[in-house]
Amino acid sequence: MKTCLDRVRQFKPLVHCITNYVTVADCARVLAASGASPIMADAPAEIVEIQAIANALCVNIGTIRPQMVPGMLRAARIAWQKGHPAVLDPVGAGASRLRSETAKTLIKSGHFTLVRGNMSEIRALGQIETKPRGTDVASEDEITERNLEEGIKVASKLARQWNTLVGISGQIDIIAAPDGHNAIVENGHEIMPRLPGTGCMLSALCAAFLGANPSEPFKATLAAFCTMGISGELAFSELKPGEGPAMWHLRFIDVIARLT
Amino acid sequence: MKTCLDRVRQFKPLVHCITNYVTVADCARVLAASGASPIMADAPAEIVEIQAIANALCVNIGTIRPQMVPGMLRAARIAWQKGHPAVLDPVGAGASRLRSETAKTLIKSGHFTLVRGNMSEIRALGQIETKPRGTDVASEDEITERNLEEGIKVASKLARQWNTLVGISGQIDIIAAPDGHNAIVENGHEIMPRLPGTGCMLSALCAAFLGANPSEPFKATLAAFCTMGISGELAFSELKPGEGPAMWHLRFIDVIARLT
Amino acid sequence: MKTCLDRVRQFKPLVHCITNYVTVADCARVLAASGASPIMADAPAEIVEIQAIANALCVNIGTIRPQMVPGMLRAARIAWQKGHPAVLDPVGAGASRLRSETAKTLIKSGHFTLVRGNMSEIRALGQIETKPRGTDVASEDEITERNLEEGIKVASKLARQWNTLVGISGQIDIIAAPDGHNAIVENGHEIMPRLPGTGCMLSALCAAFLGANPSEPFKATLAAFCTMGISGELAFSELKPGEGPAMWHLRFIDVIARLT
Repeated sequence: MKTCLDRVRQFKPLVHCITNYVTVADCARVLAASGASPIMADAPAEIVEIQAIANALCVNIGTIRPQMVPGMLRAARIAWQKGHPAVLDPVGAGASRLRSETAKTLIKSGHFTLVRGNMSEIRALGQIETKPRGTDVASEDEITERNLEEGIKVASKLARQWNTLVGISGQIDIIAAPDGHNAIVENGHEIMPRLPGTGCMLSALCAAFLGANPSEPFKATLAAFCTMGISGELAFSELKPGEGPAMWHLRFIDVIARLT
Repeated sequence: MKTCLDRVRQFKPLVHCITNYVTVADCARVLAASGASPIMADAPAEIVEIQAIANALCVNIGTIRPQMVPGMLRAARIAWQKGHPAVLDPVGAGASRLRSETAKTLIKSGHFTLVRGNMSEIRALGQIETKPRGTDVASEDEITERNLEEGIKVASKLARQWNTLVGISGQIDIIAAPDGHNAIVENGHEIMPRLPGTGCMLSALCAAFLGANPSEPFKATLAAFCTMGISGELAFSELKPGEGPAMWHLRFIDVIARLT
Repeated sequence: MKTCLDRVRQFKPLVHCITNYVTVADCARVLAASGASPIMADAPAEIVEIQAIANALCVNIGTIRPQMVPGMLRAARIAWQKGHPAVLDPVGAGASRLRSETAKTLIKSGHFTLVRGNMSEIRALGQIETKPRGTDVASEDEITERNLEEGIKVASKLARQWNTLVGISGQIDIIAAPDGHNAIVENGHEIMPRLPGTGCMLSALCAAFLGANPSEPFKATLAAFCTMGISGELAFSELKPGEGPAMWHLRFIDVIARLT
């Protein structure tokens, strides 16, 4: 994990984000804190050029509009051609046809390295029964010790089917690779899902780690998930009395910024 | 007030926001802190589906573009058909024809439960003399003890005329119902208007409270205004030396998150 | 400097921003903290009216789309006709043709008072060799004691050529006027570039200072740069152990809010 983070600090990957307007500032800040350099660009007129000079792509459908999809596909194709890792965050997949279909179209392009979502989003995309409610994970889908085995099966099956890494975040995180490898990550803190944008920041962080470690995508993704969880715990431990999710957020960014 | 907030915590209403890109993250955070679940979605292609699974709607015209209006109207109609309360925040009404006309069109749809603005915005929409300056209240319009009686008259008249609740925030807040009921709220702190987005957060909070208490809209709105004011005071009391509006903002979110 | 800031507090200029969706909230907050009143409006349908009631314009191309350019040009023309100072922040110029061409088109309009960027962006716009990487300054371009003289030459030449003030921020800031005047500013802190949005906030602050001091644009710009640097240092000095760029950001806003 340390090596992967060190490479982010040294290499300072330029991460091109085509993302939502809710958590875009949080993504920019966590990227900068990690040592990466964020650039947010969604105009089809510049997407090709920006992706060409970038080291990674992060596509997030949190406030998707249909006219953004061709640009997302084009950026992903350029990323693929140039060997830049690409992350897809299918925010709210299952909550509307637009979100589900957009995410499926992006996955089918074959140009993504990692699909990172919560279990409800991932199940919706895998056509597995779920009752997503907006952008939050449904409580029945939340991964715990109880359903961990089934969760790993789902992640592994979809990783093979989509030929991408699948990263599912929750109380327990699961990362599965198309070749059958998988890992679980048990750090993190229950305050984290109480801040909108935690998932988006994790996806951005994955893009930074992948961009700086393109030859080891599984290890880079695992390192990003661990960095997120450990930093989240550390940030929580630094909260003063009365502080909650909003202060956690800033302390989290600042933990990332000083982590070694 | 306590009961209304308890219901937000228990019911966790999904609040669909069609809102501006300036304060959208603040709205998402205050909603999550209150116990509600925010979903920001403005693409006409998904507005109907998202509103159908939501419990409330919050429309905010802070960075309005003409092409957003049909989607706002459609979301409001679905909300009305499904019995979901809908809040309108007419940010900057009076500052441009686009804002004034958009807000009037939305009000005329008859599908909103509450119009929440500052006194200049409300006066502009009621065709009552005002000199709004951008999105801030004009100092002559600010409600104080001096002009409170006239303020209540304006609010009550427009509530009847529009057949909505009218919530006016300022040094003293006024809430008026179409049936003649009204209430004033005198808590809050003078630091609050110094942070852009306080009004937008209040509108979002109203949508959460209304979504969790749809059968008691007047009481829910009053509870949201009181929660805002009391939390604002508490957050101010927690500021350390040197801290100002930016730190107040985070402490405010964290007060909301732990309020019982 | 004090007089210029005092006038912002007294006059409360309304600053119309056509800006990016990444740092828009930061710009609104720093404007409000300075005493100015922010209004973000990018719909061509309202740009003329909003600019007409405003006191200054801030155009920022951080998430530019081609369809936004005509509105930016129209707002700048109105600003010029009304005598409102206009600031251009050419975010990412050099990183894509869209950004470079947009910034050049805006400069050529002749309606801007100040172009504020980092040295890579300014060099790219001046057709001087540079290797920009995204929106960050290239390390070879960063102004230090070593290349200060050349930096002043570049700034002065472009100020004459463009007939605008040119403000270049970095370890050492340079401000150059078309009439040959120039100034350097050496305050600030190395933590500042670690927060995405510091440059955008500086441009917004310049617009506030120019809007409140329209007859002394060079002095107003210098005062805005000094206010930024000094407030940045003060905010850094207030950081507690473990705090980094995210907490610096809030403490910076709060320093601006209380600065006298």
